[in-house]
Amino acid sequence: MRTPVLQSPTFDEAAGCRVFFKCESFQRGGAFKFRGAYNTLSQLTPADRANGVVGFSSGNHAQGVACAAQLLGICATIVMPSDAPPAKLEGTRGFGAEVILYDRQTEDREEIAGRIATERGATLVPPFDHPHIMAGQGTVALELLEEVPDLDAIVVPVGGGGLLSGCATIARARKPAIEIWGVETERSNDWWQSLQSGTRVKIDPPDTIADGMRTQQPGRLTFPVVQALANGIVLVSEDEVLATMHRLISNLKCIVEPTGAVPAAAVLFKKIALADKRVAIVLSGGNADRHLVAELLRSGSLV
Amino acid sequence: MRTPVLQSPTFDEAAGCRVFFKCESFQRGGAFKFRGAYNTLSQLTPADRANGVVGFSSGNHAQGVACAAQLLGICATIVMPSDAPPAKLEGTRGFGAEVILYDRQTEDREEIAGRIATERGATLVPPFDHPHIMAGQGTVALELLEEVPDLDAIVVPVGGGGLLSGCATIARARKPAIEIWGVETERSNDWWQSLQSGTRVKIDPPDTIADGMRTQQPGRLTFPVVQALANGIVLVSEDEVLATMHRLISNLKCIVEPTGAVPAAAVLFKKIALADKRVAIVLSGGNADRHLVAELLRSGSLV
Repeated sequence: MRTPVLQSPTFDEAAGCRVFFKCESFQRGGAFKFRGAYNTLSQLTPADRANGVVGFSSGNHAQGVACAAQLLGICATIVMPSDAPPAKLEGTRGFGAEVILYDRQTEDREEIAGRIATERGATLVPPFDHPHIMAGQGTVALELLEEVPDLDAIVVPVGGGGLLSGCATIARARKPAIEIWGVETERSNDWWQSLQSGTRVKIDPPDTIADGMRTQQPGRLTFPVVQALANGIVLVSEDEVLATMHRLISNLKCIVEPTGAVPAAAVLFKKIALADKRVAIVLSGGNADRHLVAELLRSGSLV
Repeated sequence: MRTPVLQSPTFDEAAGCRVFFKCESFQRGGAFKFRGAYNTLSQLTPADRANGVVGFSSGNHAQGVACAAQLLGICATIVMPSDAPPAKLEGTRGFGAEVILYDRQTEDREEIAGRIATERGATLVPPFDHPHIMAGQGTVALELLEEVPDLDAIVVPVGGGGLLSGCATIARARKPAIEIWGVETERSNDWWQSLQSGTRVKIDPPDTIADGMRTQQPGRLTFPVVQALANGIVLVSEDEVLATMHRLISNLKCIVEPTGAVPAAAVLFKKIALADKRVAIVLSGGNADRHLVAELLRSGSLV
């Protein structure tokens, strides 16, 4: 589904540049993940469709696969961490998918999902490391450049790298001089470390509020694309993410989940030299825990 | 500014019809009021612009006039009730307007605003009862019908009647068979009483959470238009409004203020026979008090 682009003069003033918010929080399933999932599932053969699909995800990819599967009449099984946000678990089940829980600290989700796929003859739909997933997520940049052709930069959150690699591929092809930045939290800095060292660094399971960034290592396919095409990766703190979520509610009237607020935090707290530029920020998802949002609004911690 | 139209399959299922949300919560100043204000101010002569404008409003018209005046380089003075939501007072001052407070229970805002306008030679910009205001608000329906031509019904909140009369005029002209419904809360039922009796009934200052509906009487100009062109007025309870605000956050990821949630409440709680129809709901504004939203999310009172 094509999502709207919103603007806020108040945010612009605070950030010192002209911002175009691509609101994937309004996407089906509440996040950009639907794009990659739908692109992948719609290319399956009738025989593969009949055998169903299996996904693994910390949350939004789960809903993306479940929603795409429901639309295409495909049975979906999703392997999710037992500490995934309740709203994401409920959302996934709401699209008719079967959810299988695992322990994020001790079990390997890829192994579990792979075993289920083999048992059932189902197709594995990985959360980011697949060309059809990456291409699907890249449609975010495609729509952005159609709607705002004279962009100077696109800033996106980076977890597994599907969104960043897809957007970098499309944006760089369409507009070679555009800047493409990925943002992660200081605690989930596997991409930052990896770009520094030139190899895919694996970190311990990160304790970050940005639950879409709890992946431990850049993808095998996404890493070289980002390495070749992105301008770089910058980091934001947990507090900067929370303050930005609050500001997005106040300025935009939009609920954005922590991961979705990460690139906006990088722009707001000037981690990238973007003064007076025309900058697209991808608000990647809106599936925030309601208790977190309630606490933010109650305490009123506005930057 | 043209605002996006959003959809939510989850809301549709609960409401039993196909809903198109016109998100005026994303409008400049956070509400549809900018439309009427800008239409009015942009038609002033250079001499009138130089003398400034004076508005009176319970909140969103204030921000609408202040924002339009700032864009057009006109000085604005706004007369606002002392118990207006803090966010609306701050927002109005944020657009560079001078704010003058009055006591809603004992003073007459029209009298105060009229006096200031006379003293300064400024132009009075009424909140709803003016043809340019009504026409400006009607652009909501114009955009809706451009984007979703096959609508069966448009449901809007009604306070002074500017939005309802403007939308009814434009929608009825463009698509004679369309249904146009106004919605207010049971406590602010001046329109409902007025249509029943055929004359403009004045009620006591209503104690309703929908602060955009605290007007006491339909407008002199808006009433006959609504009487002639609208299908009717329906009422919702305070609790239905709160439950709907919660659902809009959950389903749409949008913060909508109580007045903006009123028409959605009428559709959700089936106050109008709209089963299986294609229904536009105007989410008229997003300037909700953050403490109210925090309390709603904390308590989790979802219908």
